[in-house]
Formats: sequence, structure tokens, C-alpha cells
Amino acid sequence: MNFKPLGECVLVERSEEDTKTASGIIIPDNAKEKPLFGIVKSLSDKVSKEGVLKEGDKVAFVKYGGTEIKLDNNKEYLILKLEDILGVIA
Amino acid sequence: MNFKPLGECVLVERSEEDTKTASGIIIPDNAKEKPLFGIVKSLSDKVSKEGVLKEGDKVAFVKYGGTEIKLDNNKEYLILKLEDILGVIA
Amino acid sequence: MNFKPLGECVLVERSEEDTKTASGIIIPDNAKEKPLFGIVKSLSDKVSKEGVLKEGDKVAFVKYGGTEIKLDNNKEYLILKLEDILGVIA
Amino acid sequence: MNFKPLGECVLVERSEEDTKTASGIIIPDNAKEKPLFGIVKSLSDKVSKEGVLKEGDKVAFVKYGGTEIKLDNNKEYLILKLEDILGVIA
Amino acid sequence: MNFKPLGECVLVERSEEDTKTASGIIIPDNAKEKPLFGIVKSLSDKVSKEGVLKEGDKVAFVKYGGTEIKLDNNKEYLILKLEDILGVIA
Amino acid sequence: MNFKPLGECVLVERSEEDTKTASGIIIPDNAKEKPLFGIVKSLSDKVSKEGVLKEGDKVAFVKYGGTEIKLDNNKEYLILKLEDILGVIA
Amino acid sequence: MNFKPLGECVLVERSEEDTKTASGIIIPDNAKEKPLFGIVKSLSDKVSKEGVLKEGDKVAFVKYGGTEIKLDNNKEYLILKLEDILGVIA
Repeated sequence: MNFKPLGECVLVERSEEDTKTASGIIIPDNAKEKPLFGIVKSLSDKVSKEGVLKEGDKVAFVKYGGTEIKLDNNKEYLILKLEDILGVIA
Repeated sequence: MNFKPLGECVLVERSEEDTKTASGIIIPDNAKEKPLFGIVKSLSDKVSKEGVLKEGDKVAFVKYGGTEIKLDNNKEYLILKLEDILGVIA
Repeated sequence: MNFKPLGECVLVERSEEDTKTASGIIIPDNAKEKPLFGIVKSLSDKVSKEGVLKEGDKVAFVKYGGTEIKLDNNKEYLILKLEDILGVIA
Repeated sequence: MNFKPLGECVLVERSEEDTKTASGIIIPDNAKEKPLFGIVKSLSDKVSKEGVLKEGDKVAFVKYGGTEIKLDNNKEYLILKLEDILGVIA
Repeated sequence: MNFKPLGECVLVERSEEDTKTASGIIIPDNAKEKPLFGIVKSLSDKVSKEGVLKEGDKVAFVKYGGTEIKLDNNKEYLILKLEDILGVIA
Repeated sequence: MNFKPLGECVLVERSEEDTKTASGIIIPDNAKEKPLFGIVKSLSDKVSKEGVLKEGDKVAFVKYGGTEIKLDNNKEYLILKLEDILGVIA
Repeated sequence: MNFKPLGECVLVERSEEDTKTASGIIIPDNAKEKPLFGIVKSLSDKVSKEGVLKEGDKVAFVKYGGTEIKLDNNKEYLILKLEDILGVIA
């Protein structure tokens, strides 16, 4: 991966099923947030040292958060803060 | 459980009686919050180390909080922050 | 008591005189808050260690705060944060 | 005094001249707060240890702050946070 | 001085020229705050220990801040937080 | 570079493609922020010591942030806080 | 200079070109802040000890910040917090 996150950042590739359905603002039926899913592609040194995530992990993260970035393979990624990642799916 | 929470997160399965009644926003008669109940299914390492909760605990938690997640057994769970959990029912 | 508070929480049984009069939002004549009263039923380990409260203490607490909980003896209790408790009445 | 404040709290008996004039919201002519006065009746252990106040001190405190409490001698007192007390009058 | 400030407080006697002109809310022509001036009359022990101010210093302070207090010589003073004092005029 | 940033600041020269498209407020189709890109020209000593950035790095940064500055070569630069920089592009 | 700043304060003399153009609220074309410039005239002891600024430095600072002060040579100065100063121009 040609992108090295800084600070608390983690680069994530969103799972395809999410990309299709997440194009609008959806008010969930029960007024609770539903997370999105993705694969960790790259971590900042600081996040790496915490030892809770590694490249390739499938993660669930909060819906409204992150910055989208198009890298030079012209694919969309998401830069998330570690605190926006809720957990790892085994 | 195939979900490992990160940070301050705890995975909880909501008790059935709550699922039925909690589908709308309810203004309680006396303007105080009423908690919901559930069973702890999985904890982050950080929460585990604090030693105040373990898998299988029945907990009361604040009503408006948490992120709903459907895991691959297609069952709904709730990801809560430890601070949203008020106590353990013996 | 079959409820063990977590974190900064304290389980309190409200005094009866308060239950009767506290059913609405009351704007006090002089725009100052008036506290409510109750008996401490159970404390988190963290609050216990601070050594400022014990079970059976009669306490005054801020009016707008806390989460109501009905435990399995079907009686209403209040879960308060320690910081919402103003003092102990001897 | 039969009331033991907790945390940052101080129990104060308001001076009579203040009780008469403080019954409404007063916008001071020059848009600056004017303090109220009272006598310290009881302190939390934490405030006592700071050594800046003792029972019997006459204090000036910020106008909009504190919780009124009627103790069993049926007299009104004010529970203030230490930070709401501006100084001691010699 | 018969007033001993607590915490971060400093007792200041406003300079006369300010008292005359500061009776209303003035929007400065260039939308920047202009400070007021006064003489330090008394400091809390905590402020004294910081060693940056002493009684008699002429200070500039932010306009909107402080609590007015009339002490028993019936003169008006201002209780300011140390952080509201911008500097000392030599 | 004749500008030495202070505190958490980093001086960045925006990439040309961004300068063209970033002249208005753009609401991205999917309500997520898209970063801008640039080249690091100068860092504060504090940022240098953190060792995560160096002059010449190509960085992605959050869109709404920073202060524009025209230096004496009459070229526009952007002063960013380190926390506004999301990562380095290799 | 007859003014000694306290705390995080720095006394700055605004550059003349800025004084002329900064008399109104200007919405910059690209919705980014543009800094103003000036010369450091005096620093608090605390800011001096940080060793990042000295008297005579030409600095860029954020536009909306600071308190204007007219000192006894009847000249206008600006009291800024160190955090409002973006960098030093060589």
C-alpha cells in the first residue's frame, strides 16, 4: 500500500456490500447506528504499536466517520481514526 | 463469538423483552431514563483487564447508546461502550 | 441487593416523600435546584474504595440525574453517578 | 451540622440581607455578576484537606450556582461547589 | 484588604477612567476586545505562589469577565480569574 | 523556506490539481470528506521531533482546515496543524 | 516596552499594511483564514522559557484573535496567545 497513515489513522478498504447500500443517509428503523465493514490496508506506526489491529483484519466501524481517499490505483479507501473502529470480525 | 470488540467496546445480546418494547422513542412518564438489559457476549482486551465484567453477565445499560451489528449467524447484537453499562444483575 | 453497580454508579432507593412530589418538572420559586433524598442500597467497587459512602447512608442528590431501574422485586430504584450525590445526612 | 457534603461540596447558610433581595433574576446594571454572601456550615473531607476554608468563614460566592437544601431544622441552606466560592471576608 | 480570594481569584480595583466609560456594552470599531485596567488589591494563596503578580501591580484584563463585589468600605472591586489578566503595566 | 512554523504547525504547498477544484464548498456525493494533497515545505521543531513527517513529503490532509499564507515569493501556502494531516503518500 | 504579558500572552505590534486592510470582517474568496503579520514586542516569562519566540521576531498570526491595547505612548498593540501565532518569518 502506497499510503502511510499518521497519528490515530487507519486506512480501510470498504467491503463491497457496504459500498452499494451506503450511498445515502439512512435513518435506521430503530434509531440506532449500524456499522459498516471493511479490510484494514495500512496503519500508522502509533496504531500498530497498540497491537490491537493488523493489516488484513476485517473490521466493523461507525457509519458516519472517516475521510474518503482515492489512491493512485484509482480505488476508493477510507481513512478512519482507531476510535471509530468498533471491533474485529474473526 | 466471532466478534472481538476494540477499545472500550463490549458486545451485548439484548434481552428479548427489551427488543419488543424498545422499537420506538419512548418518553418515560417521569422524565428519567430507564435502562435496557442484555447478556455480555464478548469484551475488548482493555475492558477484560479492568475485571468488572465477564462473558455471560446480565447487564443493565443506558437506553440511547450503542451500535447495532448483525453478525454472520444473522442475529442482532449491540456494541456498547463500557461507560454505557450501569451495572450487573446477579 | 441483586444489582452491582459499575464505574461511578450508586444504586439508591428514593425516599417516599420524594416519590410523591417529584412526578413532574417543577420550576423552583427561586430558580435554584432542590435535591432529592434516598437510601444507598449498593455501590460499585470503585465508589466503595473511595470510602465516602456506604450502604444504608441517607443521601441528598441532584434532581435531574440518574437512571431509573425496576429490579426483580419489582421495586423502582435510581442509578446515580457519585458526582450527582451532594452529601450524607446524619 | 447534620449534613456532611461529598466531593467538592460546601454547605453554606446564606446571609439574611441576601435572602431578601435574591428572590428574582436580577440583571445587574453593568452586566457583571454580583456575588452573594454566607457562612460556611460544613465541608466535605476533600475540601477540608485543601485547607482554604473552615466552618464559620464568611464567604462570597457566585450568584447562579448551588443547590438549595432544607435540613431537618427546616432551615434553608445552599450546597455549593468550592469553585463557586470566590473568597473569604475577614 | 479584608477580602482573601480563593482558587484562581484576584481582587482588583478598577481604574477610574475605566469606570466611567465601561458602563455599557461597546462594540469596538475593529471587532477586537479592548482590555480594562486596574490595581491588584489581594491575591489567593495559589495565585501568590505562581509569583507573576503582587499587590499594587497595575494590570490590564479582559473586558467581559469577573464578578463585582462591594466590600465593607462600600467601594466596588472586581474579582477576576488569573487567566483573565493579560499583563502588568510597568 | 523563509517561514518557520510554531507549535503544531506544518507549512504545505497545495498540489495544483487541488487548487483548481477546491475553490468552492463542495458537498461530496456520499457525504464523506475527501482530503486534499500537498507537499510539506517546513515544519515546527515540535513536529520535526515527532519524526513522522519531513520536508518534501507528499501528504493528504482534511479539506476544511488550515490558514492560507502568501509568502514573499508571492506564492500561496497552507499552514496546517499536524492533526489535520491524514497520512503520507509514498 | 512598558508592558509585561502574563500566562500565554505575547505583545505584538501589527504591521502597517495589515492595519490598513483589516478594518472590517472579510470573507476570504476561498473560505480559508488568512493570517495577519506583526513584530513581537514583549513576551511573558512562560512564553520566553519555551524558547520559540523572541522580541523582534516577525510573526504571522490568526486573524480573529487577540486583545487590542493602547499603551502610554498611545500606540495600538495586540495581546495574542502563543497558540494564535502560526510561525516566524525569517
